[in-house]
Amino acid sequence: MNPRILVVGGLAAGPAAAAKARRTNPQAGVILFEAGEYVSYGICEIPYFLGGTVKDEGNLLPYTPERLRKEKGIDARILHHVEEIDALRRFLLVRNLNTGGVERFPYDRLILATGSRPKRLHLRGADARNVFSIKSFSESKALHHFLDKERPAKAAIIGGGYIGMEMAEALTARGIDTSVLHNKSLPMAGLEPETRKAVAAELESRKVRLVPDCQVQGFVQRGDGTVTGVKTRDNTIDADVVVVCIGVEPNNDLARAAGLRIGRWNGILTDQRQVTSMDNIYGAGDCCEVRNLVSNKMMFCPLATIAARQGRVAGENAAGGSAAFKGALRAIAVKVFSLEVARVGLGSEEAAEHGFEPEREHIVSSSRVSFFPKSEKVNIVLIADKRSKRILGANVFGADGAVLRANTLSAAIQQQMTVDALAQLDLIYTPPYAPLWDPILIAGAQLNTRITSHEKPRSD
Amino acid sequence: MNPRILVVGGLAAGPAAAAKARRTNPQAGVILFEAGEYVSYGICEIPYFLGGTVKDEGNLLPYTPERLRKEKGIDARILHHVEEIDALRRFLLVRNLNTGGVERFPYDRLILATGSRPKRLHLRGADARNVFSIKSFSESKALHHFLDKERPAKAAIIGGGYIGMEMAEALTARGIDTSVLHNKSLPMAGLEPETRKAVAAELESRKVRLVPDCQVQGFVQRGDGTVTGVKTRDNTIDADVVVVCIGVEPNNDLARAAGLRIGRWNGILTDQRQVTSMDNIYGAGDCCEVRNLVSNKMMFCPLATIAARQGRVAGENAAGGSAAFKGALRAIAVKVFSLEVARVGLGSEEAAEHGFEPEREHIVSSSRVSFFPKSEKVNIVLIADKRSKRILGANVFGADGAVLRANTLSAAIQQQMTVDALAQLDLIYTPPYAPLWDPILIAGAQLNTRITSHEKPRSD
Repeated sequence: MNPRILVVGGLAAGPAAAAKARRTNPQAGVILFEAGEYVSYGICEIPYFLGGTVKDEGNLLPYTPERLRKEKGIDARILHHVEEIDALRRFLLVRNLNTGGVERFPYDRLILATGSRPKRLHLRGADARNVFSIKSFSESKALHHFLDKERPAKAAIIGGGYIGMEMAEALTARGIDTSVLHNKSLPMAGLEPETRKAVAAELESRKVRLVPDCQVQGFVQRGDGTVTGVKTRDNTIDADVVVVCIGVEPNNDLARAAGLRIGRWNGILTDQRQVTSMDNIYGAGDCCEVRNLVSNKMMFCPLATIAARQGRVAGENAAGGSAAFKGALRAIAVKVFSLEVARVGLGSEEAAEHGFEPEREHIVSSSRVSFFPKSEKVNIVLIADKRSKRILGANVFGADGAVLRANTLSAAIQQQMTVDALAQLDLIYTPPYAPLWDPILIAGAQLNTRITSHEKPRSD
Repeated sequence: MNPRILVVGGLAAGPAAAAKARRTNPQAGVILFEAGEYVSYGICEIPYFLGGTVKDEGNLLPYTPERLRKEKGIDARILHHVEEIDALRRFLLVRNLNTGGVERFPYDRLILATGSRPKRLHLRGADARNVFSIKSFSESKALHHFLDKERPAKAAIIGGGYIGMEMAEALTARGIDTSVLHNKSLPMAGLEPETRKAVAAELESRKVRLVPDCQVQGFVQRGDGTVTGVKTRDNTIDADVVVVCIGVEPNNDLARAAGLRIGRWNGILTDQRQVTSMDNIYGAGDCCEVRNLVSNKMMFCPLATIAARQGRVAGENAAGGSAAFKGALRAIAVKVFSLEVARVGLGSEEAAEHGFEPEREHIVSSSRVSFFPKSEKVNIVLIADKRSKRILGANVFGADGAVLRANTLSAAIQQQMTVDALAQLDLIYTPPYAPLWDPILIAGAQLNTRITSHEKPRSD
């Protein structure tokens, strides 16, 4: 029996699932539907395409539908919008956006990889020709074209999260006077205060204007509809272009309509095999919720690493294999000009919400022996549970080696190491690359001392 | 009771032990004896001082005896040579090299941190004025002075290990035509063949002449004794200066004479508390053997990271505390021009000798998203045990991010992770710093596949 496997969504999880399904069972018939014009593009690289670091658009498009067909045996159909799942009779209704016609596709297994969509500002002017979000490659190309052609002098970025930071750097690199409008006092909610302050300082040093505690109330528009400014409660910020990056949410319309179980973060709920609440329907990527390996609770965590893994697991299982995805740690990083900012595991506030008793330690140390070339400050904010001493999370930031150090901490967290065990890790010392006591060891030792001194109150 | 704690050796482990003893018991009387002129200097930084990366000699001398006294409460005596331990009556005989007089110092606890010494070539000419080793700061200063003053055109480095590589870079940086004479076909014994070949290629690309399979048989000397060449079985290599780096061995004379137990690698044997075979004598640093956490066997591993840790443990315990040093992984790295070379855990040959059934995988991948600035090739040779799938060791090399990736592997090895668990680690993807699939994950997945395919022979 050659199973017919349908995949909905062509960005990250979908192509991973389709390819893995074919590798698992080369007899499987695999059709992938993508509503947009492009499949499998480098969405995480888009800010760098906009900023000019990546000059060749082709770098962002490793796969065309033709290549997916030839190399992976996937029947990939772009401009095909899946309108309905008939879960009882196991078929999809798919509209061909070229012809307008609707076709019925039966399936044995269905994989939903419908991704996430940008949250929208429900304000008049949000759909103006110079207001953009950067969720799809098509929209990003439109923004790229706009920047090249209209050479805006001033930009307003609405939202001070990961994408907001990347866009601030990208637009500044183009010489655009950039403001970031954020609804909190510091950018990058979810990170520790020290990290958020460092990000704010980096923005300031690069002449990006951070507008904190900012409630966007509307747009100023010209007669032709073009936006010329952003109205906040207190002020108006002039802008020739506006980029909205206020986050994404799971694209769950199809799943919800089909009656699949949806979680508290609005993502599709699956088990470790990526099976949804219906037996022969799988979910993978941003449209799903993910188990947090530290809290053991579900979270929404729209990351390409997770999408790729969930996609492979869904594809393997849909094709008759047996694979599992156990969860993730929210391991994420962002470049803010010359500042590397990385985060793994729980934040301290989140940890408290999940019933841990978090203790924190912020250390500043050197990335290499301090008097060697390229040595930079490394900051670590390490978070552990007071009772168990288990490491719960960390922020690492600095101009050198933050991301790779966060990876070592990710391994430590995944292994449920305690802070004292962390302080005993055998890490490399070699002056041009790493100091005698790696910042990770210093953070572990100092947090251990802090927790231990609480345990045994001293008489003095 | 204020214990009297004597420490022999003032480089790495000794000052760490002395300082920790004072912190543990501020009433302890701590005297440290060092036979040379300097204490607590940056021995690992010396090649960079010789090569010119580190210009300020003061950077290598963070502590003077005065500073150790003032800041750490240590009575540090340089130019004091400990000649004998009377273990029965608990005193040392110490010669003051300034006065020539010998004094008796009683102790309650003794800490031996006598370090290692360079192996010597037992050849006529090995003590010539232009033949150097770089074990002590005094000798390194002499070499520095020689290089500055006599401006040698040609150098011969005898020995192709870690220090030999660092010296090749240092001498080349000074414009000296440098040859490395090594007794094996490839430099850096103990590393995997792929790594050793990459090091040889890097030397070649930097115009360093590697003379492989080379048996040094003697020196060519002028009338005044100055060496002008190195004689090998096949050839003579001209040299205006010779640096001998054929390894180090534990400096165990005092310990041996006192009847302390010595191991098969000629190092002092201690327990986890750093206690030697005599109750009130502790050992720390290069003079001791170290438990390898992978093989669970003793090894000789003269590294500053281990010396610092063993020193602290010995100092704490000597002062009445309770600390343990469980062992190490041989986590080490070296810069060979622009090549970062790191190694953790067992090599494949060593693993086989210790009864494991090693399987290896060599992968080449990108340090960052491949079309981003600063992205370089990363090589990982991952070694695991076929039966248990446990990771035993790794070599990581490349021009970007090898050392910090080796640290993540060190944590994985220390946690006894299997290759399949390694492939599931949640590592960061962010294009300017790290690719979607970190090289660590690729190595783990590929080695897992290799081992698993052996487990289940396929019919095709």
